[in-house]
Amino acid sequence: MKKLITVTTDFGDSFAAAQLRAIIASLNHNGPLIENHDVSNFSVVEGAFQIMTLTRFTPEGSVHVGVIDPGVGSDRAGVIIRSKRSWFVGPNNGVLYPSAVSEGIVKAWRIQESHISDYVSSTFHGRDVFIKVAVYLAQGKHPKNFRSKPLALSELVSTSLRPGQVVHIDNYGNVKIQWDKKLLVGRQLLFRLKGKTVKIPVVKTFSEVSEGKPLALLGSSETLELAVNLGSAAEKYAVQTGEILKIKEL
Amino acid sequence: MKKLITVTTDFGDSFAAAQLRAIIASLNHNGPLIENHDVSNFSVVEGAFQIMTLTRFTPEGSVHVGVIDPGVGSDRAGVIIRSKRSWFVGPNNGVLYPSAVSEGIVKAWRIQESHISDYVSSTFHGRDVFIKVAVYLAQGKHPKNFRSKPLALSELVSTSLRPGQVVHIDNYGNVKIQWDKKLLVGRQLLFRLKGKTVKIPVVKTFSEVSEGKPLALLGSSETLELAVNLGSAAEKYAVQTGEILKIKEL
Amino acid sequence: MKKLITVTTDFGDSFAAAQLRAIIASLNHNGPLIENHDVSNFSVVEGAFQIMTLTRFTPEGSVHVGVIDPGVGSDRAGVIIRSKRSWFVGPNNGVLYPSAVSEGIVKAWRIQESHISDYVSSTFHGRDVFIKVAVYLAQGKHPKNFRSKPLALSELVSTSLRPGQVVHIDNYGNVKIQWDKKLLVGRQLLFRLKGKTVKIPVVKTFSEVSEGKPLALLGSSETLELAVNLGSAAEKYAVQTGEILKIKEL
Repeated sequence: MKKLITVTTDFGDSFAAAQLRAIIASLNHNGPLIENHDVSNFSVVEGAFQIMTLTRFTPEGSVHVGVIDPGVGSDRAGVIIRSKRSWFVGPNNGVLYPSAVSEGIVKAWRIQESHISDYVSSTFHGRDVFIKVAVYLAQGKHPKNFRSKPLALSELVSTSLRPGQVVHIDNYGNVKIQWDKKLLVGRQLLFRLKGKTVKIPVVKTFSEVSEGKPLALLGSSETLELAVNLGSAAEKYAVQTGEILKIKEL
Repeated sequence: MKKLITVTTDFGDSFAAAQLRAIIASLNHNGPLIENHDVSNFSVVEGAFQIMTLTRFTPEGSVHVGVIDPGVGSDRAGVIIRSKRSWFVGPNNGVLYPSAVSEGIVKAWRIQESHISDYVSSTFHGRDVFIKVAVYLAQGKHPKNFRSKPLALSELVSTSLRPGQVVHIDNYGNVKIQWDKKLLVGRQLLFRLKGKTVKIPVVKTFSEVSEGKPLALLGSSETLELAVNLGSAAEKYAVQTGEILKIKEL
Repeated sequence: MKKLITVTTDFGDSFAAAQLRAIIASLNHNGPLIENHDVSNFSVVEGAFQIMTLTRFTPEGSVHVGVIDPGVGSDRAGVIIRSKRSWFVGPNNGVLYPSAVSEGIVKAWRIQESHISDYVSSTFHGRDVFIKVAVYLAQGKHPKNFRSKPLALSELVSTSLRPGQVVHIDNYGNVKIQWDKKLLVGRQLLFRLKGKTVKIPVVKTFSEVSEGKPLALLGSSETLELAVNLGSAAEKYAVQTGEILKIKEL
């Protein structure tokens, strides 16, 4: 099977996404493609988290594009990172970094945009640069074939997901939180929420508490998940993606 | 052509959807796939309606996954249903039932999760169980090949769509209502809406009434559709998915 | 590679989109497909703009479906337009016109719906007519094969995008404006916004102004783009898709 390309962005807009797919079609590429354009606007942290989660499930050799790119058009570099399992393509702003590091970074390149497109807009490198690079890599080309230049690994901008940080809020309002410790079912956690301290039970699944009641559990993306059974924790506690919550084990 | 897989969920979130697609790619499956993640949160009724509508148009032998699953992680079973035309995969909470019944149920199985994945999260069986089962079925495997156990049909949880029930509100605000009687163009219907009785003409198409005026018609999914020409009936009348409207023929 | 089909609609609803894909699957067609269902409700202007932008990137011979169709079910015709590069399919209300004209219109046909489907709903020609026609064309059939009738080009309804008109607002709140003149970086534009005259600098990229400050630039779709760095211009200035802004060069 052809190499998988995944695309994770904050476009939130099928019109932008459609243009990426048109580029793919115009390059005559028809391999598998996974698109997620629902990262919160400009949230490098959420993008990094979503790409890292996705790479847990994708086949070896996949090409992962991440376009959360508030610095587009400035002198921030576009980069390619080769890890032990995958390729990563996107702006050098940290969005690719946690995934690449966790797979083990092998090598990096700086993209030379003028060798990718004759015309490169100053606002949409996802379309004019990154998706093309991804297709080239999926087709088996090497970065040097399109004149990308080796980049010292020390030049890669890093991001880290910090313990307690809200890395994603899903459509149900479940709050996914970076967490490094073990979660013990049956114990309780103390959350600082809306200026108050709230005691929340650690359970195995939503339905262990009654409707509308809060709970914490080990989420499906290996996060600590703050939730409300059949309700929205994000709304109840006014939590935002990116913020760092104060949480104590009891 | 390979068997079609359809996936109908209330994820509302491309991040969750992307993980399902990563599983499909990792199983090296590249058959046709239809995704709809826009069912209202936890609405088994709307999910059941959308799957039933979809199956009117899908080829024989398709595999339909339905994941509206508020009981995930509890002891609710995951099931496979074989109908005369299709396969259905999802939680045993009724979301698959109306479609399967309307095609004629042949046989059912209870999924044994531990034979599907080494690790099964307690919150995301869509990814860890159901999509894998769907791929196996699309590849021609039989439920017994992955140790699913025959389930008495009497064990299947049923749902019915009740006359007058709002089964979907589309993006224009058109209200789609389960309805068993014939709709006669030129007649009128009495709706009870926001505490008032409203007389609404049955027409053939939107543009028969002037802009902003209400109308009823036979919807494209064989529902009674309450609409406002170039406006939103759901907003005008504060209607919610799942509620049962009082409607009388005049 | 098989011919590309693109579908641009205002459905805003994966349930409707899923039915189109079911039709495609039932016709045993598995060529490349690009979907964009995020056009603002009933906005022929935005649909026309999005299709025109997309066709700048799609391969020759592609089939473009546009379904912004408030007149569905009335006596408005469904049409096929052959341009020098592409096929266009949709209602004869102008949504296809700017793209087709810009590629050079060669010929047009009126679709006879009864030769496409036995049952044609009065509200969903996207599913019952247009997507089927698109598949037939992508499979190499000619309009006369399914009894479409030649239509005089003078019968095609035209739309034009007017200078100053808001043709799209993206998910970041960037306002994309039809503009025919050259944009000179370093100059300023006078916008009339919320009853006030606002002086806005023309820059090359977002990050040239500080966070929260307005800017104008040449957008990636060859529009004039009114934006706010790391913010939403549409919100700040209460701008709506379709309206015509007063803009003067300084």
